Amino acid sequence: MPAASLFAEPGSREEVESGTRFSPRFNAEGLIGCIACEAKTGDVLMFAWMNEEALRKTIETGQAHYWSRARKELWRKGATSGMVQNVVEMRIDCDQDTILMKVRIDGPVAACHMGYRSCFYRSVPAGQAAGPDMVLRFEDTDPVFDPDEVYRR
Amino acid sequence: MPAASLFAEPGSREEVESGTRFSPRFNAEGLIGCIACEAKTGDVLMFAWMNEEALRKTIETGQAHYWSRARKELWRKGATSGMVQNVVEMRIDCDQDTILMKVRIDGPVAACHMGYRSCFYRSVPAGQAAGPDMVLRFEDTDPVFDPDEVYRR
Repeated sequence: MPAASLFAEPGSREEVESGTRFSPRFNAEGLIGCIACEAKTGDVLMFAWMNEEALRKTIETGQAHYWSRARKELWRKGATSGMVQNVVEMRIDCDQDTILMKVRIDGPVAACHMGYRSCFYRSVPAGQAAGPDMVLRFEDTDPVFDPDEVYRR
Repeated sequence: MPAASLFAEPGSREEVESGTRFSPRFNAEGLIGCIACEAKTGDVLMFAWMNEEALRKTIETGQAHYWSRARKELWRKGATSGMVQNVVEMRIDCDQDTILMKVRIDGPVAACHMGYRSCFYRSVPAGQAAGPDMVLRFEDTDPVFDPDEVYRR
């Protein structure tokens, strides 16, 4: 965790779990996990990471910002794709190390960089033996946008 | 990641994101994040971690198992509280480093060790300046069980 955090330092376990002080707990990399759900349906769209700056910008602008571990940069969701996530509600969990946001995306909803509505477009079918040959099933085969066009990969 | 993984090793980015091979990506600590939602309502209940063994047991028994980072032990959800999570559906995200499960809990639903239905029982109200004085609001003030009784803390 950065030495001088913008947010309150986590206190005792009792304070963190039962109190009303917002004291987000960042991991050793200075990141906190964030689940984004669609406000209207409650469907889980994605899981991503925020650093302190991303969390601050999310709170102050009302638009979701994340930290890209791959690109090592702050990232305003929708900056390229247009799929901006407007934060309708933000929650924090018991030990204050995971954030849950209900977001509103105007227009067709796609949260995944692959063009799908949700990043969770594949299921792990039951009744398989756990092992290296496990096969996924596509539950969503209809991307909202073509990532090659949007991101010019 | 452990040298000899039970599951398939992640291949190219293309394979991981667009393929049907289940190749869960564990982090440097050998863990993968898991979001649990209530199957009936879709509400997000909790976020926890699985190691390879917890994932294998979850797949093979159909009941959620997690890895407790605090206690450093495998943990069958509900072993103490009785709030067993039966896996109705398991999904994996685009880059295969986060799992989403829809779970069925028989009886009154409480996923949080604090006795609440969901770990996300407090909101971060909008319109606050980001900083150390941010105040949370309890959205759920009615625990399903008394953690002091259930866990004999």
